[in-house]
Amino acid sequence: MESMEKLSKVNIVYTNKLNEKILKKENVLVIYDQFLNHFPDVKKFISKYTNYPVDAGEELKNIEHFAGHIKNILNLTAEFSVSDMTILAIGGGTVGDFSGFVASVFKRGVKLIHVPSTWLSAIDSAHGGKTALNVPPSKNQIGTFYQAQKIIIIKELLFSQPPERSFDALGELLKILLLCGTQSKWAQFFKNKIKNKNQLLWDNLPWAISSKYKIVKKDPFEKSGLRQILNLGHTLGHVLELEWSMSHGVAVQQGLCFALNWSLQNKLMTKKTHHLIFDVFTKFEIHQKLDQISLKNTESILLKDKKNLGNSKVNFIFLKSFGKVIREPVKISDLVIEMRRQGYKFT
Amino acid sequence: MESMEKLSKVNIVYTNKLNEKILKKENVLVIYDQFLNHFPDVKKFISKYTNYPVDAGEELKNIEHFAGHIKNILNLTAEFSVSDMTILAIGGGTVGDFSGFVASVFKRGVKLIHVPSTWLSAIDSAHGGKTALNVPPSKNQIGTFYQAQKIIIIKELLFSQPPERSFDALGELLKILLLCGTQSKWAQFFKNKIKNKNQLLWDNLPWAISSKYKIVKKDPFEKSGLRQILNLGHTLGHVLELEWSMSHGVAVQQGLCFALNWSLQNKLMTKKTHHLIFDVFTKFEIHQKLDQISLKNTESILLKDKKNLGNSKVNFIFLKSFGKVIREPVKISDLVIEMRRQGYKFT
Repeated sequence: MESMEKLSKVNIVYTNKLNEKILKKENVLVIYDQFLNHFPDVKKFISKYTNYPVDAGEELKNIEHFAGHIKNILNLTAEFSVSDMTILAIGGGTVGDFSGFVASVFKRGVKLIHVPSTWLSAIDSAHGGKTALNVPPSKNQIGTFYQAQKIIIIKELLFSQPPERSFDALGELLKILLLCGTQSKWAQFFKNKIKNKNQLLWDNLPWAISSKYKIVKKDPFEKSGLRQILNLGHTLGHVLELEWSMSHGVAVQQGLCFALNWSLQNKLMTKKTHHLIFDVFTKFEIHQKLDQISLKNTESILLKDKKNLGNSKVNFIFLKSFGKVIREPVKISDLVIEMRRQGYKFT
Repeated sequence: MESMEKLSKVNIVYTNKLNEKILKKENVLVIYDQFLNHFPDVKKFISKYTNYPVDAGEELKNIEHFAGHIKNILNLTAEFSVSDMTILAIGGGTVGDFSGFVASVFKRGVKLIHVPSTWLSAIDSAHGGKTALNVPPSKNQIGTFYQAQKIIIIKELLFSQPPERSFDALGELLKILLLCGTQSKWAQFFKNKIKNKNQLLWDNLPWAISSKYKIVKKDPFEKSGLRQILNLGHTLGHVLELEWSMSHGVAVQQGLCFALNWSLQNKLMTKKTHHLIFDVFTKFEIHQKLDQISLKNTESILLKDKKNLGNSKVNFIFLKSFGKVIREPVKISDLVIEMRRQGYKFT
C-alpha cells in the first residue's frame, strides 16, 4: 500500500517500508531516536544520511540541553545549503517535538519531514505543526507552530512497536472519535471483537489523522480557541503525566475519564451517552485510577497550563455527546473540588 | 507629532514621549536595556509594569544564556493570561532580536511590541520580523520570522542618543536610499548642508521604514530571495563586524564600500554612478578601512552565512544604479580575491 493524501499543504504518505527513494541525500539531516538502531532496515537507511542520534524522552526536550544540541547540529551541517536544508525526524513524540522546534528556528527555519515511529506520534503529535521544548518541571512551555512538509507513515515500523505503545495511542484515537465521530460510528467501531490493536489503529489512522487536520485547519495557531477542543482529556492528563510519571497516552486516557465524569456531573452529558462511552473504555481495560496526588503540585501545574486565562482559571473541554464539545473557563479551585468528588486523594 | 501608519498588519506609531497611555498594565512584560534606567522618564514608565532588565549587546543573544532567561521570564509571568500576554521590548537591535525571539517561542508565541531606543533599530532591525540568537562565534544562526504588532518610535528617546549612534544608522539609511531611491532623490537628499544627523535621520525615517516594508512584504520569510537585497553591504559587513569588533552600523558602511567597488569592477555600475555615491560617502566621512584580516576566519564566517548556497558559494548583492540591484551567487574564493584586489591584507 502506498498512497498520498494532501491535507492543506501537508503530504501524508502511507507506505510499508522505509526506503531510500523517499528523498535525496544532499542537505538532509536525519535526527533520530537511537533506539531505532535495533532495527536493521532503519539503521541501514539512516547510515546513508548525515545523521544525529538522540535519546528519546522528555529529557531531550529540556531547554538546558538546547544550546548543546544546536552546536552539534551546526557542526554537522556546516557545509549544507541553508535554502535547501531538510530535517528528517524519525522517532516518537519527543523526537518530533524537539526536531520540529529545531527545524523552526535553525537559520530561521529549514524544511521538516516527520517519520513517526510510535503509534501515538503517528496518530497525533506528528500532525498539526506543534513543536516544543520543556522548562522542567513544566512541559512544552517553549515552542512554535511549524508545519512539516511531509509526514511519512511506515506500517512496518509501527507494527514493530511493543503492545504498550498501541495501548498508549488508544486514548488519542478514542478522543478523536468522541470529538469528531457520531454515536453510530462509535457503536460500529467497537462492535467487532478486538483481536489486534495494531490492526485496529492502522485501519483507523487515515480517518483519525484527517479528522485532526479538519480541526487544526480552522485554527492553526490556536488563536480562536477552536483548536483547543483537541485538549479534551489533556488538562488533568498533563497533571497526572507529570505527578504520576505516566506515559502521555495513558495519562490522556485518565484525563478523558475525568472530563467525561465531570461532563455528566454538570448535566452536560446524558447518563446514556456516558454509559455508551464507558462500556467501550471498560472493554479496552481503561479504568480510572484514583491514587494520592499533591494538591500544591496539581494547582501549580494547572496555573502554568497554556490554557491558563489568568485569575486562576483555565479553559476546560467538556463533552456533551459525540462530536459536541463545550469549552468553558473553570476556576482551578473548582477543578480541584471535582477531583476530590471523583475520589482523588490529595496530600 | 503623533501619527500612525499601517504597513501590512504592523502599526508604526511616531510620538514624542514614552507615555503610559500606550498600553494597559495587565499581562505586559517589559524587557528593556537596563542602561535606559539613566533616563528618568523611561525608568518611571517601566516601573509601572512587570519588567525584566537586560544588558544590551551580542552576549544577550548568546544561546548559552537562553534557558536561564526563559526561566526568569516564566517566573515573572506565572500569573499572566497566555492568550493576552504581550512582550514590550525597549532597547536597540540586540534587545529587539532577543525579545522578539522570546515572544515568538514563549508558550508558542505571545504578542510583541517594539520600542527601538537606537537609530539603527528604529530604522532597520525593529522592522520586518526577524528575531535572532547567536551561537558564538557566529551571529543569528537561530531565529524566527515573527512580526511585532506595533512599533512605537519615540523622538525624545532617539534624540538622546550619543552622536556615534546616529553615525551607525547612516549606513542603513544610505543602503535603503541606494536600494529604493532614485538618482534625483539621492542628489536632493544631500544637497543641503548637514548640520544635525539626528534631524536628518528623523526626517527620513518614515520614508526609509516604509521602503523597507515594501521589500519585506514581497518576501516576508526570505523564501523567494527578493528580501535578500536588503543584505546589500552585509556579506562582508558581517565578517568585519565579527573580526574587527566593529559596530553593526559601521561594518555595514564598510560592506557597502566593498559591494559598490566590486559592482564597478564587474562593470555592473558606471564610473559616474560610483562617483555620485562615493561623493556622499566622503561628505559623511565614510571611508573604506583596509586593515589586516584573518583569511581563515573570513572564509569560515562566509561559509556560515545564511545566504550560503552550499558548494562554497554565497548570494552576493551587487548594485547597478539607484534602485537597480543584482543578486548573484559568487564563490567565496572569488570574494576573497576581490578583497585582496581592493586592498585588504590577509593574515
